[in-house]
Amino acid sequence: EAPVDPKNPKAGKWSFKPRGRLQIDTASVSAPSSIGSKSLGLASEFRRAYLGVEGTIPGNFGYRIEADIANSTIDPTDVYMNYTGIKNVVITLGQHKPFESMEDTESDLFTSFMERGSFNTAFGFERRLGLSAQYQKGMILAQVGVFTDNVTDLNTDSDNSYSIDGRFALQPRLLGGQMHIGGSAHYHDLNEGYATVRYRARPFTHTTDVRFVDTKAISALSETNYGLELAWTGGPLHFTAESQWMEVNRPGGIADPTFNGGYAEAGLFLTKGDTLPYRMNEGAPGRIKPKNPVEKGGLGAVQANLRYDWLDLNDAGVVGGRQQLVGASLLWVPTDYVRFLLDYGHLWVNDAAVLAGTDRSYNADVVGMRAQFDF
Amino acid sequence: EAPVDPKNPKAGKWSFKPRGRLQIDTASVSAPSSIGSKSLGLASEFRRAYLGVEGTIPGNFGYRIEADIANSTIDPTDVYMNYTGIKNVVITLGQHKPFESMEDTESDLFTSFMERGSFNTAFGFERRLGLSAQYQKGMILAQVGVFTDNVTDLNTDSDNSYSIDGRFALQPRLLGGQMHIGGSAHYHDLNEGYATVRYRARPFTHTTDVRFVDTKAISALSETNYGLELAWTGGPLHFTAESQWMEVNRPGGIADPTFNGGYAEAGLFLTKGDTLPYRMNEGAPGRIKPKNPVEKGGLGAVQANLRYDWLDLNDAGVVGGRQQLVGASLLWVPTDYVRFLLDYGHLWVNDAAVLAGTDRSYNADVVGMRAQFDF
Amino acid sequence: EAPVDPKNPKAGKWSFKPRGRLQIDTASVSAPSSIGSKSLGLASEFRRAYLGVEGTIPGNFGYRIEADIANSTIDPTDVYMNYTGIKNVVITLGQHKPFESMEDTESDLFTSFMERGSFNTAFGFERRLGLSAQYQKGMILAQVGVFTDNVTDLNTDSDNSYSIDGRFALQPRLLGGQMHIGGSAHYHDLNEGYATVRYRARPFTHTTDVRFVDTKAISALSETNYGLELAWTGGPLHFTAESQWMEVNRPGGIADPTFNGGYAEAGLFLTKGDTLPYRMNEGAPGRIKPKNPVEKGGLGAVQANLRYDWLDLNDAGVVGGRQQLVGASLLWVPTDYVRFLLDYGHLWVNDAAVLAGTDRSYNADVVGMRAQFDF
Repeated sequence: EAPVDPKNPKAGKWSFKPRGRLQIDTASVSAPSSIGSKSLGLASEFRRAYLGVEGTIPGNFGYRIEADIANSTIDPTDVYMNYTGIKNVVITLGQHKPFESMEDTESDLFTSFMERGSFNTAFGFERRLGLSAQYQKGMILAQVGVFTDNVTDLNTDSDNSYSIDGRFALQPRLLGGQMHIGGSAHYHDLNEGYATVRYRARPFTHTTDVRFVDTKAISALSETNYGLELAWTGGPLHFTAESQWMEVNRPGGIADPTFNGGYAEAGLFLTKGDTLPYRMNEGAPGRIKPKNPVEKGGLGAVQANLRYDWLDLNDAGVVGGRQQLVGASLLWVPTDYVRFLLDYGHLWVNDAAVLAGTDRSYNADVVGMRAQFDF
Repeated sequence: EAPVDPKNPKAGKWSFKPRGRLQIDTASVSAPSSIGSKSLGLASEFRRAYLGVEGTIPGNFGYRIEADIANSTIDPTDVYMNYTGIKNVVITLGQHKPFESMEDTESDLFTSFMERGSFNTAFGFERRLGLSAQYQKGMILAQVGVFTDNVTDLNTDSDNSYSIDGRFALQPRLLGGQMHIGGSAHYHDLNEGYATVRYRARPFTHTTDVRFVDTKAISALSETNYGLELAWTGGPLHFTAESQWMEVNRPGGIADPTFNGGYAEAGLFLTKGDTLPYRMNEGAPGRIKPKNPVEKGGLGAVQANLRYDWLDLNDAGVVGGRQQLVGASLLWVPTDYVRFLLDYGHLWVNDAAVLAGTDRSYNADVVGMRAQFDF
Repeated sequence: EAPVDPKNPKAGKWSFKPRGRLQIDTASVSAPSSIGSKSLGLASEFRRAYLGVEGTIPGNFGYRIEADIANSTIDPTDVYMNYTGIKNVVITLGQHKPFESMEDTESDLFTSFMERGSFNTAFGFERRLGLSAQYQKGMILAQVGVFTDNVTDLNTDSDNSYSIDGRFALQPRLLGGQMHIGGSAHYHDLNEGYATVRYRARPFTHTTDVRFVDTKAISALSETNYGLELAWTGGPLHFTAESQWMEVNRPGGIADPTFNGGYAEAGLFLTKGDTLPYRMNEGAPGRIKPKNPVEKGGLGAVQANLRYDWLDLNDAGVVGGRQQLVGASLLWVPTDYVRFLLDYGHLWVNDAAVLAGTDRSYNADVVGMRAQFDF
């Protein structure tokens, strides 16, 4: 009995594909001038500049090695090997995403706004070194893994943290479109006698390092978080919504806070025949492929999106602040692998960690642009 | 009306090309021993070690992502996307060169000496993030762009500088060869309440970090620089010359200095049939392709070059020093993508920033060797 | 008379091959708890994550540019150009290994244990910038080169060290297998008025930064080291053994110590028909290619190995400690380019540099696992 699936044509094959992506961002945050930061004006940056490779190795093995050089440093992103020899199952070992949410699982190449929902960064989602298994057959998707730290953090010679992470989704066809109902649950043991966590989020753009909401470092033993996911895409329309709760287990008699965030989004293609694809094996939206791309004389795809996003970092004595956002974005996808994005957001901040004079409650506006390609 | 040029065969095509270069340098500076630096003796280094990719994307888009790893860090070099769908025009967005001079535009793979004319480094020319357009048709070349900082500097969370940069060249056939008459002009606003600039140059080799001439940090609001370019190449001969003026707009009542540098070069091939190519779409010399390369049993190309180079960093109360150089180089190009280079320079320094005992005026000699390949 | 060998089909050819490797390690050191380090428990890391390219250029030139990104930094590994136009000879210029030992020359992809013999790291073997020539014909292998520092160290602007390095091996067929009898000798001038060296080794795993044996920094002018190498591989069996002596030339009247280390190893394939290959042009073991790999329905190759390893850093007044190890490893090679490795070691340490309470002599146990692929 051979461990190799004879129906898998990749079993005996080598393949090799270079990978790259570039996102060039320009954005400006308009906030009360009494904040007095040099960081909130018009600013530009490489949001991401990835280079890497992926491929397959005979015996149903595969790999990806990729890194982000946007900050003039090397930040390893997906760096793993996998095994696809069991039907409907992918086993992955190395640095990859711990299935934290629908939007975190979705590639940053495909999101409807320049940044993901603010809870994704606030709660510290990142790729980490781990071993995971994924099962997908028909409308069922199940992902589970054990993870330790991000490889950059593993370089510090201390005790490694560990986590158990699971995500599940039902993906039926519904009302002439694709439905997604999902959820995830996570337990992360910091594995240090006395450790800290910090939750914070930028104001809808990565070009600034100012965070209006920020719990600052708080003592912690472990984190438990869980999320709910909902999506539907069909024809020119799509809807997505998520919410996630992060519970911090604090040492001794300190009360354990639970922080919450989430978003709800709706999108509409203005160009005829275009739709937002869905990836069954990721449980998340995929790449927009314009029906009439510019290389065939068309205009490409144009999509408008609206989003409400909230993040509440106040609980059990911790006052990290509350942030709400209403955002609008306009995407132009001239061809499958090139994208331009304009977005605008209005923010309401309460109990802010950054004072505007003596004021902890204020509004801000953010305008951003992105040019992007990948291969 | 399709935005895609039907005569452009790349409009609907993907292409992918890996890029790399390695320059291994050994050099020695012979200067008065009273300078007492450990850095001036025989030293070796990787001058450049680039790895990257470039290619095209359907819809007349193109890209390049490349970085220098020679210093055991990641220094992004050309990282951009471009659009070639308009006839004779290239639009580029990302990090690229702001058309500072003829020799700065020329690839470092092709220069006649190990280092470019000293004003190029002294005046801080570097790739920066920007948006530019280039028009070239027949003998006309025009380049114009708006730029902000180098992406590495953009990581610091402060106000971004911006500049407007333009370069123009006439490129007629003349006297049986290729003529180049050009110029460039640049305005760079540092966009900080109180910023500094610093102009300095190494002594004809990059292996040392000692700079005999150096203005040290001086307060500045903005920079205006402009340059003149002249070149002719035909048969075994070529001549190139440039000069550039850098005017510093200093705050308050401080006088605004103008610094100047330049060079004049002549070269001669010793091997029959070889010539220095010229690139119309860059307005600069190109790759030497030996008529009789070693892979066909030939010797490759051998070229001898002479250069006079000057840099004057004394003006309006700033005493950065004056440096003059007479240099000679010998190139051996066994095959198109491999090159060996030996160069020698004699330097005269006045008002030096580095003292030899109590002496601010002295001479130095520099000998250097380079082995290089690229793909 | 053409300098190009007409029998060398690569003389006029371009080639390009991407390179990559990933080693994911998990290990635990069980040592006296009185040592009190957070670094000795269960820990994981990317041991190596290489990306690079190699190829040939017309005219019998070749190149390799590769770097390790495992530590979220860029560490250039092999970065060189070479020339193969002289029969049986390879001339290499750039950063490569200075032929320090058999196991140091062997790729880390092929070693029988997760780490090489402890003298290899203790004595500071690393790739350095140099020019070398290698001759191999039939059973004769001779390697000689001059080297300066590692390119990362060359970035510091001080006097460069230099070394002369030679290695020689006889590689006859013997007793139905492949024999290797070799030796190497090295002189390394630190080329500084007053420099230091430091010899130390991790306890059989790279996941910890604790070194039980460590000379700490000692003043030195130069190093002279020499080694002996012995190996035999045939059928399912192989034996390897090496020893190396490192003599430190210390300034003034300080006595010159000689440190010593080495190992002896035996291995046996448990799967039928498998053997440990030997590379004549490297003078070291090569890649295991399972006779029945998983992609053909087989089990792959399974090999068991035993090793005794010693390191003595006590001499002439320097007390760096003594470390002995008995190790066992089990390799599973499902297909040529994928490998899983489990190893165990028991360590005896005397005169340790790290105290267990007040004790300088103690034992430790190490268990480690590796998953690896390369292309």
